[in-house]
Amino acid sequence: MYALEQKILNEGIVLSDQVLKVDAFLNHQIDPVLMQQIGKEFAARFKDTGITKIVTIEASGIAPAVMAGLELGVPVIFARKYQSLTLKDDLYRSKVFSFTKQVESTIAISNKHINAEDKVLVIDDFLANGQAALGLIDLIHQANADIVGVGIVIEKSFQPGRDLLLEKGYRVESLARVASLTNGQVTFVIE
Amino acid sequence: MYALEQKILNEGIVLSDQVLKVDAFLNHQIDPVLMQQIGKEFAARFKDTGITKIVTIEASGIAPAVMAGLELGVPVIFARKYQSLTLKDDLYRSKVFSFTKQVESTIAISNKHINAEDKVLVIDDFLANGQAALGLIDLIHQANADIVGVGIVIEKSFQPGRDLLLEKGYRVESLARVASLTNGQVTFVIE
Repeated sequence: MYALEQKILNEGIVLSDQVLKVDAFLNHQIDPVLMQQIGKEFAARFKDTGITKIVTIEASGIAPAVMAGLELGVPVIFARKYQSLTLKDDLYRSKVFSFTKQVESTIAISNKHINAEDKVLVIDDFLANGQAALGLIDLIHQANADIVGVGIVIEKSFQPGRDLLLEKGYRVESLARVASLTNGQVTFVIE
Repeated sequence: MYALEQKILNEGIVLSDQVLKVDAFLNHQIDPVLMQQIGKEFAARFKDTGITKIVTIEASGIAPAVMAGLELGVPVIFARKYQSLTLKDDLYRSKVFSFTKQVESTIAISNKHINAEDKVLVIDDFLANGQAALGLIDLIHQANADIVGVGIVIEKSFQPGRDLLLEKGYRVESLARVASLTNGQVTFVIE
């Protein structure tokens, strides 16, 4: 997605060979117009798949997921990383290990808002090692719902997440695919 | 805002005289169409105030804030409740006590994305005791930016947050004002 790649080149900061910081438009400050374009792009790529729900994870997945939900006309559920006091329903839970933060956390969604009739699109901001996406997929499986695919804003293609998801049979649509971050330079996968 | 009040009456769950759960459309599952209506309503109420930035707090403030940002044509910054590894800039920090969760947390925004020229609209999902809004206001003051007002999706008008903000001179625009949750019933402030 050209507009996203340009934004990454102009405002992304390469912190290391592994870490791309996009706090200027996605992970801390959010560019709502770009989010709308991203929502439209996800909707276009998945439009004929009968999606009934989008599932994402707090906090940075919410903006792109809600814009996709608006375009597709479906509700969005964001998995919580911590159980809040007002989320007392029976929960589906999964463990997710973050390589970036080197911590394991529990993610959860309520069993009230998803069921076996749902066809779910998983959306997340980044795909690196695939652990967050696999955690979300695990939650959706617990609900016996179908998974239509995984929509990713920025994929780090040099990390194993994409292949892990493809090997398990999931469709992966990443709007920007970063081939490398070496020498402080962002290069994209040529498709 | 009529559509929001109807949604609260139809899908909100009164957990106690103090707690209204809106996990069906705002705090866990999100209704993107309603969020768009909310964004348009905030934009209409604050349209002539020269807003340059919206500041909210993760996670439930993000959806309404991004929709308002889209309408107003300005970026959205979401304060983080935890410092992440990739947010290494100098940070403005403030302490917020949650009466609901009975914990104090630190919220923070990067000093890169806000400055003394900014005119900021604060948006949050709930206004109860006002502690989250005051924490966000504190962050914005640290940047020497102006605060145009506070936009709230659901105000619990029987709690002190609104009066606290008004006493300090802030404009408060709440799209639904809950007068009472007694006897399991939601009643709204008649304006």
